This record gives sequence, structure tokens and C-alpha cells, in this order.
Amino acid sequence: MKAEIISVGTELLLGNILNTNAKFLSEKLAEMGIDVYYQTTVGDNENRILETTINALKRADILIFSGGLGPTEDDCTKEAVCRAINKKMYLDEKILKSINDFFIDRIMPESNKKQAYVPEGSRILNNDFGTAPGFYIEEDKKILVLLPGPPVELIPMFNNYAIPMLKLQSNLIIKSRIIRTIGVGESLLEEKIADLIHEQTNPTLATYAGRGQVDIRLTAKASSIEAANELLNTMQIELDKRIKEYIYSYNNETIEEVIFKMLNERKLKIGFCESCTAGLITSRIASIPGASRVLERSYITYSNLSKIEEANVSQETLNNYGAVSEETAVEMAKGLLNNSPIDISVSVTGIAGPSGETKDKTVGLAYICLATKERHIVIKNNFNGSRETNRQRFANSAFNLIRKYLLELI
Amino acid sequence: MKAEIISVGTELLLGNILNTNAKFLSEKLAEMGIDVYYQTTVGDNENRILETTINALKRADILIFSGGLGPTEDDCTKEAVCRAINKKMYLDEKILKSINDFFIDRIMPESNKKQAYVPEGSRILNNDFGTAPGFYIEEDKKILVLLPGPPVELIPMFNNYAIPMLKLQSNLIIKSRIIRTIGVGESLLEEKIADLIHEQTNPTLATYAGRGQVDIRLTAKASSIEAANELLNTMQIELDKRIKEYIYSYNNETIEEVIFKMLNERKLKIGFCESCTAGLITSRIASIPGASRVLERSYITYSNLSKIEEANVSQETLNNYGAVSEETAVEMAKGLLNNSPIDISVSVTGIAGPSGETKDKTVGLAYICLATKERHIVIKNNFNGSRETNRQRFANSAFNLIRKYLLELI
Repeated sequence: MKAEIISVGTELLLGNILNTNAKFLSEKLAEMGIDVYYQTTVGDNENRILETTINALKRADILIFSGGLGPTEDDCTKEAVCRAINKKMYLDEKILKSINDFFIDRIMPESNKKQAYVPEGSRILNNDFGTAPGFYIEEDKKILVLLPGPPVELIPMFNNYAIPMLKLQSNLIIKSRIIRTIGVGESLLEEKIADLIHEQTNPTLATYAGRGQVDIRLTAKASSIEAANELLNTMQIELDKRIKEYIYSYNNETIEEVIFKMLNERKLKIGFCESCTAGLITSRIASIPGASRVLERSYITYSNLSKIEEANVSQETLNNYGAVSEETAVEMAKGLLNNSPIDISVSVTGIAGPSGETKDKTVGLAYICLATKERHIVIKNNFNGSRETNRQRFANSAFNLIRKYLLELI
Repeated sequence: MKAEIISVGTELLLGNILNTNAKFLSEKLAEMGIDVYYQTTVGDNENRILETTINALKRADILIFSGGLGPTEDDCTKEAVCRAINKKMYLDEKILKSINDFFIDRIMPESNKKQAYVPEGSRILNNDFGTAPGFYIEEDKKILVLLPGPPVELIPMFNNYAIPMLKLQSNLIIKSRIIRTIGVGESLLEEKIADLIHEQTNPTLATYAGRGQVDIRLTAKASSIEAANELLNTMQIELDKRIKEYIYSYNNETIEEVIFKMLNERKLKIGFCESCTAGLITSRIASIPGASRVLERSYITYSNLSKIEEANVSQETLNNYGAVSEETAVEMAKGLLNNSPIDISVSVTGIAGPSGETKDKTVGLAYICLATKERHIVIKNNFNGSRETNRQRFANSAFNLIRKYLLELI
């Protein structure tokens, strides 16, 4: 079964709002094993909706419309769809009454009457959160589903009324799993699994890069959830053989969630001494509910003086090696460790850019040190992005260092 | 001029990610006076991209593509577009070298070579943040613009290289101005300017809420930049009369940029003692290039012990009033102020949620204190969002307190 999502609304074409409905509907259809080949967005214009509908009927079995069911004159999805499939509309007294009831303490505006017109032969999808009913139409082996635009109305209507009807159309389960990696670029990762990407058809593999990390999505089709999981598990074992060192989650978690869990399980407290990242790392850890179980304190030592006063970095080290140096990073991490009841201390000092570059220290350079009572490890980063990209990458790099340390990989 | 936006990517059809590129491009095109009639999303499939391109060429003058320019085999936007307009591709040695340079300390994977192929007769759009160049193709009175998918690459490429070329296509100037407010809700703000929103046609006004702030967008159409600016200036004066106290920027700046500028002009140093926001405030200030001119140091005092040890909060205060209290906030701010060479110290202590609530202290409660050598001011927040929303709002509230202090409004 192939589906096409048709989003109606001039506000989408003007870029006023994000099309969250298309994402929601696509995700739900994928879960049901229904392939979406196209998403089309069209304005509140009857002729263009008509054209889009005719076009979609040629290439898809299921058309899901959102928007254009409101009471105003520019709402015309129903009208265009009826023209495309040659159907009339009739006034449904029951719907009219329920719309009337919706206006509890005031009179229904005349324009809302428009919403009580129903395409011939369609089944009505109740709107529990608004006045516009939806419609489910089967016509000439095609299915057309009309949903209202506001997500608060569309989501429950689709979940509660449309999905049960659509499920009867599909007998395949599609299940996805997101495997997340860190510390490796997209092309290098792909090289290691190129044969799987190209030759595997069930599950399929695809890579996605973002925020300085690469995700791998596995998608399996099967007749049951168990069978789909079995396919995913087998592929996961294969991936582990090749790239296990980079994988931090098989479960769509963020790197900070994974670090939080590992620290929490091991009952370890952490603190950060941040210079160029300036609270970004600590804040990402603190975004997780319950962060206080692992996070004790951090210093943001932006000035040289604060590095000396708070983290006990020596003036001599700063003079001899500079604030962005391996030596300073080590003293920062150790200084915080000695000052506080934490088990792991992590420092970052670098040049986020765009200025601040010197002859031998370029934008994107950072030193990251992880120190415990027993040992310390320093790594060097050399990135070349914008200020924000560099700061996020420094943070990811620090998280990856913590992960590797906790897994005893370094 | 009519445009069509074509988003390429199977991850969009699977509902894995939101199509923020289509919104961004639509908004930018609208600002240039270019109408978008359709947005189409298609998967990483050469034949379907080809079909979509041929279809779009029939109904639009400008086609903007995003995605499918990567190094992997399923990236095939360039190939499909070249088939649609009957163009060959050649290997561009200069691009190949710049991609090579991108891999500073490792060897370019062979697959990236694919990105150095250029459609005949196209102009190259530099990618300052990745390896995939974009393309601007004029062919048979149509314009085709090919952009990479990741927003961090697409946005600067479109803004810096594609817009200047596209602007030559339109002869009406559309100029927008974003007026940013803080410390006022959307409905209250709208009440104060409802008549302007409904009656004004040039410029138009619209409000947008996000990240706990409300923006007002003015959009003027005119035959020259000067005439458009004149219309915007007149409306700005009217807005000042009604809501000046909430406006912090007439210029699309963020609140942190405005605070940074004010501190920098006054040569003031600032530091933060953050508990629940845990580095978020400092990090937002540090996201601005040159932040070291105003930012000296911060403490992230997440545990009670760290509040005592770092910020000299007294055990008695914590016992009597709790960590989330006016008294603790004041001691935190004063403690940091006394420890460091800063002019302004700002503390935040609160409950971000979802847990941590007590009988008389609910999630969303925070105390924020601004202290200087001369005085201190405390404000109390009572929000009711998610953990992340609350943390962002606490941060905004702290920034608004600093703004009001610097403007001598409190």
C-alpha cells in the first residue's frame, strides 16, 4: 500500500508554521507498514487542491489530507476532493447538532454550518476537540482520509478513529530502531557498513548526520512484531561486530542520557570545569530529570583569573603554555576534583571562534581532560565549524571521553 | 514569480525528522515577494525525484531542492535534476580540493569525490559548513537551486549565496522587521495591539510566540528599500507608544545579544551562580562571539554543599528557608560577587521539574537575584512548563531582570 500526505494551508507555504502534521502522519503510517512516497503541501485554493488530488490518485492508494475543513470561505479541501472523485455533499443534521452543541454558551456562527456537509458515501471521523468532523472515503479501490489542520484535533482523530480503519488495509508490521554513534564521521562510518547499506533489503539501513553525531536507522518489515524484532536483533549483532566502539545507544537516547544512566548506575558524581563551552556541557546533563543524582557542581572559568582562583591553575602554566593547552586542561580538571566531593572531573579549554586564533592555535582547537583520583586522560580536538558547532562538538567530545572511560575503553 | 520547494529525503517520509527546511525556505521566499504554491517531499529515489522535478518545472519558475547532495549512493538529487533538464556533470578539481581540505587530519573517503561533480552551466554555492556544494542553475527561463539537507549547511548557504542571486528576480521589495519582546504573554500583548493586527495592511503585523518570548513581525511592501523602511519606522513609533517596556530589540537580536551589547558598552563584567539552570544562562551568553569581554566566571552550584562551599551560602539559611528560597538566592548572588572581580552577579535557584516538588514549592518556582556592590533585587518566577521550558524561561527571566536593571527600569 502506498500513501500520499497532502497538507492544505497557505500558512505552511508562507513558512509561518512548521508542518508537524506531515511528520506525525508519516511516522504513524510507517508503523502500520504503509509506505509514504510523497508529501505535498498546497495552499487554500480549490483548483490547486483538486489538481494535487488528481495527481495523487494516480500514484497512491491512500490519500491523507490535513487542513482546510474549517468554517471560513478559504477552507475548501472537502469541496476539491468531492470534485476529484465526483461526489456530492449533503447536510448531516446530526453533525449540525453536535457543532451547535460545541458552542456551549454562545450561538453558532452561520459559517460553521458549512462543516456539517458530508461527502456522499463517506464515514465520519468524530472530532472530540473541535467542530470540524473528518471523513474516511473508499472510492474505486482508493482511500481518502480528510482530517482537520490543528494538531490538537488531528492527532486524536487519527489515532482513535482513522488508524483502526486503516489497519484493516495492511498486514505488515514495520519496525524501526535508531542506533546512535559518536566520535566517527558519516563517510567513515558508511565505509565500514557500505555492503550492508547496499545489499540489505530487510532490514534496511540508512545513516543520518546531525549535531556532530551520526545515527543509523534500521527498518524491518515482517508479519509480526516478534519477527521484526528478530530481524533487527540479527542486524544489530552484525553492526556490533564492525562498529561497536562508536555505538552509544541502540534505543534513540541522547549521549547525555546515556552518560547520566551510566554514572547513576555506578553511583558516581561528576563535575565540569568549562571554559569555551561555558556551561553547555553541564546544562546538557542537567536537562535530564534527576540530574542531581550525578551532578554535583561545575566551574565556568572563562577568565584566566578565574582559572587560577577557582581551579587552582598556576600562573606559571598559563604563562608558559597558555589557557588553551594540555597543561591548563589537566590543572583545571584536577583543581575542581580536589575542591569537591566528585569522582570524575572533566575540563574543557579551547577556541570556539570566530576570533581568538593565534599562530599555532586555530579556531576549533580544544583540550579536554578527564581526571579521577587515580589517573587523568587528555584528548585534543581539531574542529573547523562555526562558534556554535564547535561548542556542541567539544561537548560531544567530552561526553564521548566520559563514555569511553566508564566502559574502560581507554 | 512562482516557486516550488522540493525536499528530498526518505527520513522525512518516514516521519523521523521535521521538515524545518521547507518552513525556512518558504519564509525567506515570501520575504522576497516570491510566491510558493507547492512544497513537495520525495524520498531518496532517483526516478521519483525526476518525476517530481518534471512536474514542478511545468508549474513553477523557481525550484528549490534540499537534500540528497551527500556522498552516499542514495544521494541522487543532482543526478535526477540533471536528467530532468538534460545536463551532464563534470568533475571540478577546485571543489575536489576544498572537500579534501575539509578532512584536515584524515584522508578523504573515496565516496566524497562524488560531491565534486558539477552540473554543466551551473553556478556553485559555497558550503562553509560541510562538504556538499550547492548549485544555482538557470535553464530555459527556469531557475533550479540545489541545497544540502542539514539545516546548519542549508541556512547559511541560502542566506549568503542563493538569496543575492534570487533577489535579482523580483522587483517588489518586501522588508520585514522583527520586534522582540520579553516578560509579557502573547494574549496580553495582542490585546494591546489588536487593532493594528486587524486593520493594518502595509505593513502587516503578526505575533509569534516561542522559547517563552513573543516576537512581532512587521512586513512592508514597497518599490524601494527607503519607502519600505519609512513604513516600518512609522509603525515602530506606534508600537513604542503602547508596548515599549517589553521591547528589547527592533532588530531580530536575541535577548543574550542585547544583554551582551549593553554590558560591553558599559564595560561591566558579569557572572552567574546557577542552580537549576545549571550553565544554561552562562552558555547562552557565551554563544556570542567576544563574550569574554563581559563574562568573567560562573558557579554551577547544583548540590547544597557546593552552594555553601563555592557561594558561601550559610548552612542556616539552607536549613531555615531551603535551597529554593529568596534568602538562598540572595546569598548565592552575593557570594559569587564577593569572590570575583565582577560588577553584576546573578543567581538562579528553582525547581525545573518534573519531580522535586514540595507542599509549598511547586515545579516552575524559581528565585532570581541580581546583586551589585550597591544593591540587590530579587524576583520570583512561577511557571508551569516542562523541565526544558521552565529552564529556558528562568533564563529569559534572568536576562530580563538584567535588562531592566541596566536600563534603570527597576
